[in-house]
Amino acid sequence: MDVRSLIQHKRDGASLSEAQIHSIIGAYVDGTMADYQMSALAMAIFYQGLDDEELQAWTTAMVNSGVRLKMASVPGSKVDKHSTGGVGDKMSIPLAPLVAACGAQVPMISGRGLGLTGGTLDKLESIPGFQTRLNESDFERAVAENGCAIVGQTDDLVPADRKLYALRDVTGTVACDPLIVSSILSKKVAEGIDSLVLDVKCGSGAFMQDINSARRLAARLVKTAKGQGLRCGALITDMNQPIGRMVGNALEIRESIALLKGEGPRDSWNLILELGSRMLVYAKEARNIDDGKELLESAQRRGRALARFEEMIEIQGGNPAILENPDLLPTASSQVEVTSPREGLLASWSATNIARAAAVLGAGRQKVDDQIDPAVGIELIAEPGQRVSTGDVLAILHVNDKGIQEAQDLVAKAAHFDGSVQLRKDRVLDWIE
Amino acid sequence: MDVRSLIQHKRDGASLSEAQIHSIIGAYVDGTMADYQMSALAMAIFYQGLDDEELQAWTTAMVNSGVRLKMASVPGSKVDKHSTGGVGDKMSIPLAPLVAACGAQVPMISGRGLGLTGGTLDKLESIPGFQTRLNESDFERAVAENGCAIVGQTDDLVPADRKLYALRDVTGTVACDPLIVSSILSKKVAEGIDSLVLDVKCGSGAFMQDINSARRLAARLVKTAKGQGLRCGALITDMNQPIGRMVGNALEIRESIALLKGEGPRDSWNLILELGSRMLVYAKEARNIDDGKELLESAQRRGRALARFEEMIEIQGGNPAILENPDLLPTASSQVEVTSPREGLLASWSATNIARAAAVLGAGRQKVDDQIDPAVGIELIAEPGQRVSTGDVLAILHVNDKGIQEAQDLVAKAAHFDGSVQLRKDRVLDWIE
Repeated sequence: MDVRSLIQHKRDGASLSEAQIHSIIGAYVDGTMADYQMSALAMAIFYQGLDDEELQAWTTAMVNSGVRLKMASVPGSKVDKHSTGGVGDKMSIPLAPLVAACGAQVPMISGRGLGLTGGTLDKLESIPGFQTRLNESDFERAVAENGCAIVGQTDDLVPADRKLYALRDVTGTVACDPLIVSSILSKKVAEGIDSLVLDVKCGSGAFMQDINSARRLAARLVKTAKGQGLRCGALITDMNQPIGRMVGNALEIRESIALLKGEGPRDSWNLILELGSRMLVYAKEARNIDDGKELLESAQRRGRALARFEEMIEIQGGNPAILENPDLLPTASSQVEVTSPREGLLASWSATNIARAAAVLGAGRQKVDDQIDPAVGIELIAEPGQRVSTGDVLAILHVNDKGIQEAQDLVAKAAHFDGSVQLRKDRVLDWIE
Repeated sequence: MDVRSLIQHKRDGASLSEAQIHSIIGAYVDGTMADYQMSALAMAIFYQGLDDEELQAWTTAMVNSGVRLKMASVPGSKVDKHSTGGVGDKMSIPLAPLVAACGAQVPMISGRGLGLTGGTLDKLESIPGFQTRLNESDFERAVAENGCAIVGQTDDLVPADRKLYALRDVTGTVACDPLIVSSILSKKVAEGIDSLVLDVKCGSGAFMQDINSARRLAARLVKTAKGQGLRCGALITDMNQPIGRMVGNALEIRESIALLKGEGPRDSWNLILELGSRMLVYAKEARNIDDGKELLESAQRRGRALARFEEMIEIQGGNPAILENPDLLPTASSQVEVTSPREGLLASWSATNIARAAAVLGAGRQKVDDQIDPAVGIELIAEPGQRVSTGDVLAILHVNDKGIQEAQDLVAKAAHFDGSVQLRKDRVLDWIE
């Protein structure tokens, strides 16, 4: 294979054949194709795109670069959910045990946070003892036993994506729909699932800032997933404001526990119902979305979802006592209030500034090997739509030693007064399937 | 400097500042910016281009990546010529001593062949003993002594280009005007010259296949060179047919000697006059082009040019006896005739097929580290415009053991019969300054 001529081919707008794409991915994984050739090709794809057939072949080639789980010992329908990433987006954590409690199987392979959006694995690892590095057979056993498990990507799963994702991150080729689609779906297909519900975030705190790009990405994801043999649909949800009230790793575990206990913020619970009900419909555990929502509400009320989460924590080596006593989670050394500088109507919280504030406190990662502080983060007190007086507490920063002043400024800037109130429960913008 | 954001900047069509460009080139040379980042940026530049200011800054930054020769000990005007590369293009070799014999100084840094076009250094190195690796002070001394020298790029001259050129070669980013312009000119500016005559080749045997792309490249080269403080103009010359009758390294030295003795092919001599006269005008050794041509003719007739070449070979360690006895050059083990399969009017020779034939015999290089065979090549016997009979000799292959049958087929295919005769003396298509 002449890699150079394949790069030129794509560069000049021609389509790559299925065989060429498989050669490319194979050569990249085995090192015959150098990083500097793949980054040039990725940039050419940024401009020239991949057509539907190319994208399908690229996704298949990524899956085939590693093992594909069969989940043979797991009976019934296997369903997963993937979010393109939002600020305060801890939805996967309550969702997996909730949906499992309703009878579906949820083998979830999740990621770490990078940039503004937090990672499910980082959040789970704030639970003392919790292991996200399970090998394939332990992962399958965990799902077979309890109906759900959330783990990290192993070395054997889609190695092409691990290599390519790291390369795209440093070469300005992240913002490329077909590469995003194949990266997301290759990992999901390799899990061995039957169906997938996507949550494509849209707004200032998300990768897709406008509804048209979000719709375009969602449509491409759904079409490609179907081509890979999955049932698939995508919710497009608003990401201008943080999800829930907690942003930060251990804080988001606290909020996840609250949600499973029926004490969580309404916006988050609503989003869980929208996502979870669709997962149950795909898994054939619910007749329709309303039926699915009822099943989820009931699983929560009866404590079955919380029991599944407890079991999941135990199976993955964590301390389930955090459910009764969340103070066993890492706790920041002090709490700092951010008070309102004025009187008025709190219209909205800026997701971006809240995420930045959490990052400067140490909750986030700028580079893959940055250490995160599980204890720190932001707790939003005032809710959009609420009238506040000067000096009222708007938010509480959970801080250790780092970035306190900067985080205070960012959170103060994040509070938008007056203007139109953006209601937090109204997150669903569209459903594409 | 955040390399990733600079790549994204260019990717999205914005201009890079002078400071950003200097940081990029500096970081690339010192290794802070990885190859895979530069190749992604090069691909972004392929699509987004560089505007005039960016190109000027990019060229300056390339020059500044290494030493810039001062040529302080060389009195008078220093002029060079650069060709974008053609089949059988040995023009630099007779030109340097000819122009030097007319009073200008020609410090020429030349390159090796890659792909279809031969390299001046490879040709010169077929002269027994000839050294092209001179350090900067020996190079300057050679020019001071004899008015001309042709050497290879040293490690200290434009290291950014050496690194970037090798990278572009394997990442499909060669065909990019601003990167071509900065690559050519950075090396020429670093030589310490005052003026430059460019020979932009155009046609099936050249990189630029049509006159519009050749004009566009020539205009960009001339404008940028002037911005770098050089007097500069560009000839656009036809490259549909090989230049001269010899293609192959030692064979082209033979033809160079013949040209300096007044016995070379007319097309080549005409091209030498066009290029050399403009060099002399720029160097203020001739009042105008016609005056320059007369000076060149006279320097040839009086043997002064050949004497300069003799001196140049001696200074650079080669055996000057080849001038009297060209059989001292490497000679192929046998000669194979290609005869005409038909009767008719020979209309043209295809430069591309002749170059391919020379390459399969071993005269060319596909990869930078390929070994070349200095002795092999093609000698064209029949000239376009000539009537031939079946069985007449069209060309002679100088062969060792490699590729004989394939070369015969290619040369036979290269001979186009009937159709319109393309006269070989009519090479100049345009002059841009």
